[in-house]
Amino acid sequence: MTRVIALLTDFGQEDIYVGTMKAMILNICPTAQIVDITHAIQPQNVREAAFALLNSYQHCPPGAVFCVVVDPGVGSERHAIAVNSGGYHFVGPDNGVLSYALAHLATDIEAVKLENPQYQAESISHSFHGRDIFAPAAAHLAQQPELFAALGGALETTVSFPPPELSFARQRLIGEVMHIDHFGNIITSIGAFHWTGDEALRLSPVWSKAIPALDLSARTANITIHSHTVHGISHAYYEVAPGEILAQIDSNGFLEIGANQDDAADRLDVQLGDKVMLRL
Amino acid sequence: MTRVIALLTDFGQEDIYVGTMKAMILNICPTAQIVDITHAIQPQNVREAAFALLNSYQHCPPGAVFCVVVDPGVGSERHAIAVNSGGYHFVGPDNGVLSYALAHLATDIEAVKLENPQYQAESISHSFHGRDIFAPAAAHLAQQPELFAALGGALETTVSFPPPELSFARQRLIGEVMHIDHFGNIITSIGAFHWTGDEALRLSPVWSKAIPALDLSARTANITIHSHTVHGISHAYYEVAPGEILAQIDSNGFLEIGANQDDAADRLDVQLGDKVMLRL
Amino acid sequence: MTRVIALLTDFGQEDIYVGTMKAMILNICPTAQIVDITHAIQPQNVREAAFALLNSYQHCPPGAVFCVVVDPGVGSERHAIAVNSGGYHFVGPDNGVLSYALAHLATDIEAVKLENPQYQAESISHSFHGRDIFAPAAAHLAQQPELFAALGGALETTVSFPPPELSFARQRLIGEVMHIDHFGNIITSIGAFHWTGDEALRLSPVWSKAIPALDLSARTANITIHSHTVHGISHAYYEVAPGEILAQIDSNGFLEIGANQDDAADRLDVQLGDKVMLRL
Repeated sequence: MTRVIALLTDFGQEDIYVGTMKAMILNICPTAQIVDITHAIQPQNVREAAFALLNSYQHCPPGAVFCVVVDPGVGSERHAIAVNSGGYHFVGPDNGVLSYALAHLATDIEAVKLENPQYQAESISHSFHGRDIFAPAAAHLAQQPELFAALGGALETTVSFPPPELSFARQRLIGEVMHIDHFGNIITSIGAFHWTGDEALRLSPVWSKAIPALDLSARTANITIHSHTVHGISHAYYEVAPGEILAQIDSNGFLEIGANQDDAADRLDVQLGDKVMLRL
Repeated sequence: MTRVIALLTDFGQEDIYVGTMKAMILNICPTAQIVDITHAIQPQNVREAAFALLNSYQHCPPGAVFCVVVDPGVGSERHAIAVNSGGYHFVGPDNGVLSYALAHLATDIEAVKLENPQYQAESISHSFHGRDIFAPAAAHLAQQPELFAALGGALETTVSFPPPELSFARQRLIGEVMHIDHFGNIITSIGAFHWTGDEALRLSPVWSKAIPALDLSARTANITIHSHTVHGISHAYYEVAPGEILAQIDSNGFLEIGANQDDAADRLDVQLGDKVMLRL
Repeated sequence: MTRVIALLTDFGQEDIYVGTMKAMILNICPTAQIVDITHAIQPQNVREAAFALLNSYQHCPPGAVFCVVVDPGVGSERHAIAVNSGGYHFVGPDNGVLSYALAHLATDIEAVKLENPQYQAESISHSFHGRDIFAPAAAHLAQQPELFAALGGALETTVSFPPPELSFARQRLIGEVMHIDHFGNIITSIGAFHWTGDEALRLSPVWSKAIPALDLSARTANITIHSHTVHGISHAYYEVAPGEILAQIDSNGFLEIGANQDDAADRLDVQLGDKVMLRL
């Protein structure tokens, strides 16, 4: 049986780090289908990684194992963990990097500490647990999922991340920039939306039960970032002229500010964490 | 049976886009051998992608499926298509991105529109057909090639790209810069050439029947780009001193201007589309 | 049987070069598990590639085939070779790129020239032996390891690289910068170390028999690079304040200068080849 092991790190692809993780995996699980989700998380940006995992895990086949290594506390007392939830396995540091996906799964969670030396590299470096602890654990889980409980002692609770900024008052949603993509599209925390008609959108807030589900008109919504305001939410880039800034709903349901064939983040000088406002 | 699915996009590798396409593929075709041809096409540069496909498809195993997503018109009325030609399957937007490869194959072409929701993601986003339409279609074709006709209605003709600039008059070939590689080598539209002797080259124009096949002496050819002229066509970088600019025939038969252990494009300040002249 | 073919080049991932090498491999060995060790070696930096291979090969499964293409002399008289050593196969140009790994393996070596056209592409370009010679040889070795002797004539000796700078005198180790990673960590030639206690390190020099094995106190060692001195060798980044420079032992046993959640190479303006001094 071929299982997917999905890798998500901040290691970049310039070094041998990702390659040696894959080599370690293939020692243990020779037939693994290894998928690079991304290795370009901003160094040590645990929250950007949590958002990337949220948006990717649900497209992976049942039984997939996620090996998520964004780990500024490597070598410290933070736990290395494996989590079993919703038919997936997750492996990573217990620093919140898994928590958006686990909250989204909203189902039973079993967690164990990765302590059993039998399922680790022979010697453990202080700085590269991706190679020595996380990759071997992921490979063993792909090869023999029933090993889960043998990886180490059970953990009652795992670290959860505070959700990103998302608040609603006086017909205004305030969110923040979660990710800027390769094209310069600006992905925000305002979502998830789905279209319920040509001009009608429904918001089912993904982060907070305190915010009500909302119905809104795409045509009359105004989106402001820095001092730039976009009027209305488009369906696709081509609906505006080349170079023009638009708002749309991204492929995972989040509000996105982009530009037709241009780099919106560069044009508007936007950074991760910047505030975004949507007026209904 | 293991089939190759080759991906060619402008998505970069910083985001989760390529990874989620692979996840979608493995849901449908768990044993696919997925090959990244490149994800670094200039954003929305359909023609650079068409040239990259031309130069790579022919090295792939028979039965390979190409999933080519450079798609500035995503969400518009442009068709999403699959093409069957020469023992390969191609999947992508009908915007010309497949046309250089299809012209080079020069054989029968069957084309269908990707319309059948049975072979698409459950819900289709407006901005990421790579994940929702193209990856599933490629995976289904790899898993069950005979599904081709079931993907959607037949298409009489597909969009063809105008060929790149290549003209011949008064013993001068005029072409343009098609690609600048990682090393700064400048790949032009002037080709394809093959060596017929130590100093003898034969040109069999790949783009235009209007240009005659030509025999020329590599030694006496002069190549001019911007105000720089190179005398003669070399066989290999090492034939000139480190840092020196040279012309040679690239690995796919196109005229290339490079530099021995240096970045020719940077040195000569060359961009895509710049003109190149070869005097016989 | 699934075999690992590990690729290590300076081709970058922007072009179709790596993808076409993989396509060539899958024509010959359809079930290969292809692993990208890295493609971001500095263009033509044979020594950086040799160091990357040294630090990665030992984590790969037995029987792995390494296809190492950093090849400034492509098209010249340098040999293309395959080497059989320690249960691995290595394929690459005979320019020293394999020599650190082979010296580390320290076992019997068999070498052959890649001359047999039967195991090469049908036509051989002058500039892309990665596609036309090395990838096919690696794939044939993965598919049928017993073909080794059929690849070409035996070679008595292969090119060995001079080891990096590492000298010891008057209680000072002098080394040089071998690699700067994605995070800005500075990896030096001073190693390999392993911890023998909380504050005790043992050096077993990897490059030179002329340097004695040494025991040292991590606490009292001073490390100087440019005009910056670090006092003591830490176990992990988190032991110093965010932004602070530290020295530690990297995951392969080499002395590393890094910074907690910061880019040490940028902060200290360090380049490959810069000198580093460790005072015991």
